[in-house]
Amino acid sequence: MTAHALAELADLLGARLVGDGSLTITGVAGLREARRGDVTFLVNPRYEGYLKDTGASAVLVAEVRPDCAIAQLVAADPYMAFLKAVKIFRQERPRPPVGVHPTAVVASGVVLGRDVSIGAHAVIEEGATLGDRVVVMAQCYVGHRARLGTDTFLYPQVVVREDCRLGERVVLHSNVTIGADGFGYARNEGSLFKVPQVGNVVLDDDVEVGAGTCIDRATTGTTRIGAGTKIDNLVQIGHNVELGRHVIVAAMSGIAGSTRVADDVTIGAQAGVNGHIVIGEGATVASRGGVTKSVPAGAIVSGVLPARPHGLERRIQASIARLPQLVQRILRLEQRVAELSGEAPPDGAAAQPAPDPAASAVPAAPEPVAPARR
Amino acid sequence: MTAHALAELADLLGARLVGDGSLTITGVAGLREARRGDVTFLVNPRYEGYLKDTGASAVLVAEVRPDCAIAQLVAADPYMAFLKAVKIFRQERPRPPVGVHPTAVVASGVVLGRDVSIGAHAVIEEGATLGDRVVVMAQCYVGHRARLGTDTFLYPQVVVREDCRLGERVVLHSNVTIGADGFGYARNEGSLFKVPQVGNVVLDDDVEVGAGTCIDRATTGTTRIGAGTKIDNLVQIGHNVELGRHVIVAAMSGIAGSTRVADDVTIGAQAGVNGHIVIGEGATVASRGGVTKSVPAGAIVSGVLPARPHGLERRIQASIARLPQLVQRILRLEQRVAELSGEAPPDGAAAQPAPDPAASAVPAAPEPVAPARR
Amino acid sequence: MTAHALAELADLLGARLVGDGSLTITGVAGLREARRGDVTFLVNPRYEGYLKDTGASAVLVAEVRPDCAIAQLVAADPYMAFLKAVKIFRQERPRPPVGVHPTAVVASGVVLGRDVSIGAHAVIEEGATLGDRVVVMAQCYVGHRARLGTDTFLYPQVVVREDCRLGERVVLHSNVTIGADGFGYARNEGSLFKVPQVGNVVLDDDVEVGAGTCIDRATTGTTRIGAGTKIDNLVQIGHNVELGRHVIVAAMSGIAGSTRVADDVTIGAQAGVNGHIVIGEGATVASRGGVTKSVPAGAIVSGVLPARPHGLERRIQASIARLPQLVQRILRLEQRVAELSGEAPPDGAAAQPAPDPAASAVPAAPEPVAPARR
Repeated sequence: MTAHALAELADLLGARLVGDGSLTITGVAGLREARRGDVTFLVNPRYEGYLKDTGASAVLVAEVRPDCAIAQLVAADPYMAFLKAVKIFRQERPRPPVGVHPTAVVASGVVLGRDVSIGAHAVIEEGATLGDRVVVMAQCYVGHRARLGTDTFLYPQVVVREDCRLGERVVLHSNVTIGADGFGYARNEGSLFKVPQVGNVVLDDDVEVGAGTCIDRATTGTTRIGAGTKIDNLVQIGHNVELGRHVIVAAMSGIAGSTRVADDVTIGAQAGVNGHIVIGEGATVASRGGVTKSVPAGAIVSGVLPARPHGLERRIQASIARLPQLVQRILRLEQRVAELSGEAPPDGAAAQPAPDPAASAVPAAPEPVAPARR
Repeated sequence: MTAHALAELADLLGARLVGDGSLTITGVAGLREARRGDVTFLVNPRYEGYLKDTGASAVLVAEVRPDCAIAQLVAADPYMAFLKAVKIFRQERPRPPVGVHPTAVVASGVVLGRDVSIGAHAVIEEGATLGDRVVVMAQCYVGHRARLGTDTFLYPQVVVREDCRLGERVVLHSNVTIGADGFGYARNEGSLFKVPQVGNVVLDDDVEVGAGTCIDRATTGTTRIGAGTKIDNLVQIGHNVELGRHVIVAAMSGIAGSTRVADDVTIGAQAGVNGHIVIGEGATVASRGGVTKSVPAGAIVSGVLPARPHGLERRIQASIARLPQLVQRILRLEQRVAELSGEAPPDGAAAQPAPDPAASAVPAAPEPVAPARR
Repeated sequence: MTAHALAELADLLGARLVGDGSLTITGVAGLREARRGDVTFLVNPRYEGYLKDTGASAVLVAEVRPDCAIAQLVAADPYMAFLKAVKIFRQERPRPPVGVHPTAVVASGVVLGRDVSIGAHAVIEEGATLGDRVVVMAQCYVGHRARLGTDTFLYPQVVVREDCRLGERVVLHSNVTIGADGFGYARNEGSLFKVPQVGNVVLDDDVEVGAGTCIDRATTGTTRIGAGTKIDNLVQIGHNVELGRHVIVAAMSGIAGSTRVADDVTIGAQAGVNGHIVIGEGATVASRGGVTKSVPAGAIVSGVLPARPHGLERRIQASIARLPQLVQRILRLEQRVAELSGEAPPDGAAAQPAPDPAASAVPAAPEPVAPARR
């Protein structure tokens, strides 16, 4: 177990110590989970209330807090300092020892770099190449002619299909599928005719892909994920998509075939991006955004369908929230105009009641859970 | 094969028999699938039409039906009685025999309770602990120091990463990933800096998790799922989320990091819940609801983005459905006001045609399928 | 490597040659990826700009292009001709050799057809039946009594649970789960009571299922996918759903329990279909459509919640896009009516400013990424 005196830790983190520097620090934790020996941090004012009850021995803060009962480490960016502390105290991730587990099936002719680790029941097919220090954990599948760059790390039960290529320091989490067929069919005289998917997938250096995510192989050519791009869990990347460098794609988003996403784009959770469009450099798609057409560089778009420039979408949403009132205002206007003109209100509008949702053709929200009762 | 005389079954189910009690019942089935020897049930009036053609030998009903050609079992709650019948007749689920399959890889020092079953090609890493009668089916992965409580059951190809803890009677379906890294990156001078994810996941007793679902480990501390909570397929639970007891999360929903969901909450399918908020006890999020801020206890919220109190959302939806008519009514008002004031209509409104969607800046719905044509 | 003279290829594709028929063609590729020796195609005018820079040796087109520097193959449907070319030149997919890999675990009593291939670490449970030429790639799981028809192909790490049946030429991609329990619970005195899921899943001939997709077993009876139906990645099909023939379901869509989808239906990406409804023959659900009630045959529905007939939804969307203007128009009307009637504007409307989204109760779009900061 790593241990540091608090004064020593303050030095390592570049923080100013307020309190007893001789305390022994042995770990890191959030405010609520922290126990004696832990250092914690406070940034979000929402969590201030937890400070007085924390079990931590010390707290990273941006400014000295006179009311704080425990030792303080004052840092310009307490969160970044906390992340440094996490690295100092964390346990090394478990990984299979260097070598090939006796139950792994490694085809003849596979090229293994130095200090490669291959776990139990992993399968490496013919023609694959693994760089130095690659880790393939238990039960992974690496297909024919696949290439994994140095220091690439596959968690258990990853599938990398044939001919796909991973750069250096790529990390794939469990149940990721790289290189399944793209979804392409042509309706032809009633049947569906499969478009063969003969391309591959290339993940450049430092890409990380979350659990359960699928990145499909190209129809022809390459589905490509640029260097440093990070993809969350349960994301779908269609065939022939190209993501740039340092793109973030949050959980459960989907990007349809042949779309290009430029560098430094951020895509929120549960978003959907249409096929054959371009998302410009540095653009942001808000969570749940449904992007139907290309987005210029630097733009922020939001809205479920279609996503629009964020300012416009906010105005529209503000209007939608007032819609029931607007309907009433229109009704009153109709009544007054009818009065002014000495006529009966047009189309019986004055007699028209406020909208009654129960009587409306619009169904209520669907049942949140529909067990198979019948 | 289990078999009961119908009279005997009526007793077991606490139902009143109308018809021939000597019939032999050997199974259960829905109205349409049922064959001779099956008992079925009728609750939903939508399915009444199938009763006259059912192949079942008997039907569970709430009230005697004079028009019914087959034997009837009259029960206060026919559906609950049917579930009892399902339990009486169901075949035991296949499971590996007690013991460790010779192809499983169980590290030295793993603690196995009594009557544990470990299937073919399973991998159990060092320091793991399995309680009595735990079943780990084929090709599962149980990481270092993971703990599985008594009677916990893993279907094939589940991944439980290191240090995660499962209570008693937990059930995980195939391709579940417990404890993959949470998605945390800080943009830092152009690159994305990974926030180490050093916490774990704890599933309390009687939790069930559907196929393909991912529950991420905490950044620090614990992502926790409370006792008796049931999660459907392809759900994403972010790092440091806490779900209470008896929560239902339907398929394809996502809950972002650090959100707390209290006891007895129901979350419909394809919902999304923002991070760092609280869903109060007993609240309901309708299917597809996009929850952007905390929800009070007992509330029902619906709406894709943002979710709102269900009554308000229904009024808004009713207004939205009438929007094209409202536009016409505004246009007519403008014309009449112009007439009344003896002026040309303002801004040329009178000359303005009805909205033409084709000419609108709003794109049509995206192509439902976009094969990679180019 | 396959090679054809271009004149020969023109014959094979039924295309008219314009250019040098003696060129050697060795592959196929998209316009941008193509290199010397490749044939490419041009259909979508959006990609015309790439023609002048393509590295391809020949291009499939619908009409002769005078400006084109490379050889042309003129075909009535250049895309279908291209697909033919793809088939001519593609490499055979890697697959395990005929026979059972020595590390596979095949229970006694499993029935294997002729020329079956079973990969490394696959598990086939008791009572399973595999037809002729079935391919089960590495690390797949085939449950008790499951049946796989002739020429069915499982990519690595597929799970087919007990009693499920696959027809002929079925293709399942990696991390698919067939036959996990349907999601059925009844709230009963505070707890959640599991509804046993004792039915199965049947996939008819020529079904293809994308990576990570889950198709749940029926409560009783069968969840059925009709012949020739194609399902994309990360799709959720609930218990007792029935899909007809030649249905397309694009990525990340979900279909809730007991819904019936008729033949030739197309369901776009990220759609949601409520339980216990019917989607009529040949209907189309646009991407992201949220279908709350039954859809007639041939209809096109779109809209996130609820999906409506596509024409109506477009009119509504056009109105929504103009909502902020409509609010202004209502405000002006109120002012003018007040002037006309010589009164103060009603409810202070004249003094009411344009809607200010910042002050609105409607929250902005949620943070696109919410790392676990606190």
